[in-house]
Amino acid sequence: MIRVHIWAEDQPLPFAKEQMRKIYPTGIEGAIADFLNKQPDMMITTAVMSDAKQGLSKRTLKQTDVLIFWSHKHWRELSDEAVDCVWQRVLEGMGLIVLHSAHASKIFARLMGTRTQSLRWREADERQRYWILAPGHPITYGLTGEYFEVPMDETYVEYFEIPQPQEQIFITSTQGGEIFRSGNCWTRGAGRIFYFQAGHETYPVYYQREVQLVITNAVRWAFIEKKVAEWPDWAREAEPIDATK
Amino acid sequence: MIRVHIWAEDQPLPFAKEQMRKIYPTGIEGAIADFLNKQPDMMITTAVMSDAKQGLSKRTLKQTDVLIFWSHKHWRELSDEAVDCVWQRVLEGMGLIVLHSAHASKIFARLMGTRTQSLRWREADERQRYWILAPGHPITYGLTGEYFEVPMDETYVEYFEIPQPQEQIFITSTQGGEIFRSGNCWTRGAGRIFYFQAGHETYPVYYQREVQLVITNAVRWAFIEKKVAEWPDWAREAEPIDATK
Amino acid sequence: MIRVHIWAEDQPLPFAKEQMRKIYPTGIEGAIADFLNKQPDMMITTAVMSDAKQGLSKRTLKQTDVLIFWSHKHWRELSDEAVDCVWQRVLEGMGLIVLHSAHASKIFARLMGTRTQSLRWREADERQRYWILAPGHPITYGLTGEYFEVPMDETYVEYFEIPQPQEQIFITSTQGGEIFRSGNCWTRGAGRIFYFQAGHETYPVYYQREVQLVITNAVRWAFIEKKVAEWPDWAREAEPIDATK
Amino acid sequence: MIRVHIWAEDQPLPFAKEQMRKIYPTGIEGAIADFLNKQPDMMITTAVMSDAKQGLSKRTLKQTDVLIFWSHKHWRELSDEAVDCVWQRVLEGMGLIVLHSAHASKIFARLMGTRTQSLRWREADERQRYWILAPGHPITYGLTGEYFEVPMDETYVEYFEIPQPQEQIFITSTQGGEIFRSGNCWTRGAGRIFYFQAGHETYPVYYQREVQLVITNAVRWAFIEKKVAEWPDWAREAEPIDATK
Repeated sequence: MIRVHIWAEDQPLPFAKEQMRKIYPTGIEGAIADFLNKQPDMMITTAVMSDAKQGLSKRTLKQTDVLIFWSHKHWRELSDEAVDCVWQRVLEGMGLIVLHSAHASKIFARLMGTRTQSLRWREADERQRYWILAPGHPITYGLTGEYFEVPMDETYVEYFEIPQPQEQIFITSTQGGEIFRSGNCWTRGAGRIFYFQAGHETYPVYYQREVQLVITNAVRWAFIEKKVAEWPDWAREAEPIDATK
Repeated sequence: MIRVHIWAEDQPLPFAKEQMRKIYPTGIEGAIADFLNKQPDMMITTAVMSDAKQGLSKRTLKQTDVLIFWSHKHWRELSDEAVDCVWQRVLEGMGLIVLHSAHASKIFARLMGTRTQSLRWREADERQRYWILAPGHPITYGLTGEYFEVPMDETYVEYFEIPQPQEQIFITSTQGGEIFRSGNCWTRGAGRIFYFQAGHETYPVYYQREVQLVITNAVRWAFIEKKVAEWPDWAREAEPIDATK
Repeated sequence: MIRVHIWAEDQPLPFAKEQMRKIYPTGIEGAIADFLNKQPDMMITTAVMSDAKQGLSKRTLKQTDVLIFWSHKHWRELSDEAVDCVWQRVLEGMGLIVLHSAHASKIFARLMGTRTQSLRWREADERQRYWILAPGHPITYGLTGEYFEVPMDETYVEYFEIPQPQEQIFITSTQGGEIFRSGNCWTRGAGRIFYFQAGHETYPVYYQREVQLVITNAVRWAFIEKKVAEWPDWAREAEPIDATK
Repeated sequence: MIRVHIWAEDQPLPFAKEQMRKIYPTGIEGAIADFLNKQPDMMITTAVMSDAKQGLSKRTLKQTDVLIFWSHKHWRELSDEAVDCVWQRVLEGMGLIVLHSAHASKIFARLMGTRTQSLRWREADERQRYWILAPGHPITYGLTGEYFEVPMDETYVEYFEIPQPQEQIFITSTQGGEIFRSGNCWTRGAGRIFYFQAGHETYPVYYQREVQLVITNAVRWAFIEKKVAEWPDWAREAEPIDATK
């Protein structure tokens, strides 16, 4: 069983609040939990920023195999302690799926080492066309055709300051004629990270079949069944071994 | 079920023949089949170069999800037709595991685009130490410690003319003080390729637990459960789509 | 001095011939030679397919540091001998710049190991917008803004079957709402390869300042000033060295 | 002219102090400055941690094209302000060469996003053999043979927790039979980063011809002559552009 923890900031801006509550009555975390709960190999928990320990306690994270992370304007408020703990767990092998506006989050920036908040954006009810660049990759299982479309979502535009993805899964062409690297994989330490652009809070994106498929696939891809065991403590002195035997 | 086809050249050089037949009475393909047959999710077939259609007919390849490929001095004798067919199938999503001296094979060179036969070697009964550089990667599942050792095998030495691996899994330090990139992953088209150094025909390498673990893991990693469906024909004219919708 | 050899197929299809001759009276190779000849650090030669030895003799290639290569519908007619020789020279350190429809060429397919002719296309007088994804890369020196545009060119569309670029320099968004990986870097052996989409024969693309800048930069990037010297012969037996000293 | 700033911690541990001062009477920064000063295309400045603003003021960094950075046990003492400023400058295009024990530095860890202090080590007067894996790369210009050796240096051993290098230049085989990824390239934002293992303070490593060659080459490789100009401010709202023109 893959233990999936779905975390969302859940602090919509005043003008977006009503719309978001209408679209996502149980929150973004609730909508994602709904479709993942149907997977026989997954056990789901959810949390939001207003929970105890901001929903990301050490204990919770120790029992998490894959963390799904959605944040927005309140990203600066996540405690450094929580960020540290997520960071450590990813390096130890916890999978991390970073959704949409969590591009700006402290945890994503820290794992990338760059100014990941650096991209351009607009909310203009525009179509996003996700081109599939990795037809055999587990994250694309079950998709059909050369691309799929999200009919309306926030538009993100390059230049997105990220290290070049180790595997480029999707690139989006926007209705406004731009591009965005919208599905990107990296490994850091023992952990696998997937950034996926889809899902502004005022559009029903997480109810779309293709988006659900991508997130479900990504959970399985990011799950490290068993990492190398008996790995030594870090940064200790090395005893010489016999080079000739 | 993963349909695994294990192919071996099975034409040992005169001076190695007796030793090889003693160590591998059912061939290298037989020894590998023995441990993979114990996996509940795999269906195994085997073939050798002296079989009809050299053991690599179109029909066989169409029914293969992952091909394990071991060749040696007779690599030039594999027909171009068979090589073409394997190549096409890999690009369509068949996994390929290239073992040991198959580094020189036509199919591996063709997928890499370089002179993959270019490395240095000696047969000197030397220990090979496989350092694990990707502790969370599926191919390393179940390994313990920082490295594992093959007590005796043929020694391979850099410079190995390959495109830089997309994921570097193992690097070997040899008893002679050299290094070799010994566990390397690439994607070509929809297919995943793993090169693994272990297994000269005159050493019982394929009976070693760690080697069996790596090959078993690699089969699962290279297996493309379902690639993007309804992919269009290649290289045809593109109809414009509406950029603004 | 960088010795640049510019090679073009120069066999336009009947219906394109007049237009091409009007736009490029001295051929595509002539237009490129004109702007590269102004560079103080470059020495330029040109050739076309109808030249002796198809313009790609061993002698010529031995004296070439960077080869610029433009081909189209007659790509199958380049002799295997010439392709072999270019391939060998790239692996030895000759830079290679592959332009536009040379995506389908034997030499590019051989270095990539994939069906590089696989992309979608149309000739519809459309604008191509080249987004810059590598702002500090030598190939982008002197460009300004987030993208540059080619007002009219042939449209290329993904899926383009290439190994994931080691450095992704440009991605194009087309007027038809698609994307294309249009500026891609790889290393094979000691050689550096740059694929650049711009330049169908019936549009005056090679007279555009940005396109000239990119090609000029790419020549300098692909030039290997001096590769590792005294490199040993390939694939010979290795003498053990003392591991402990 | 490339403006190179060489920075060293220059706070040797008590037991190493005398030996270091004897080997490097003008400091490690002085020894490196000596050979770089002979390069006609470089202008050299040096600084140490005890200088005003710890030798890394905003003003200094603004006038630096490539920073060479050597630190050791006092890495925690570098101010967060200085680290921030170096980090920002790298993303804007300043080259960074991270030497030896600076693997543990805050700036390197921040750019990598991992626990870069995680490696194994011993000081045992051992030989380090640097295998060349990128024979055409600018950083290897002028080297001969398959490897070069540093007769005595501190030994570093995997597992080194770094993102897989975008270009793997060197891997070291140690006298103790281990390996270490000892020459590694990455790009972050517009900046190029090279980590190079050589140079513990109690060995005269920086007087060795090959080590000097590698550092000199790395400065030229990391130098961004001119990055994309007129790049827009980050993270601002994007005006739609006309997708169809």
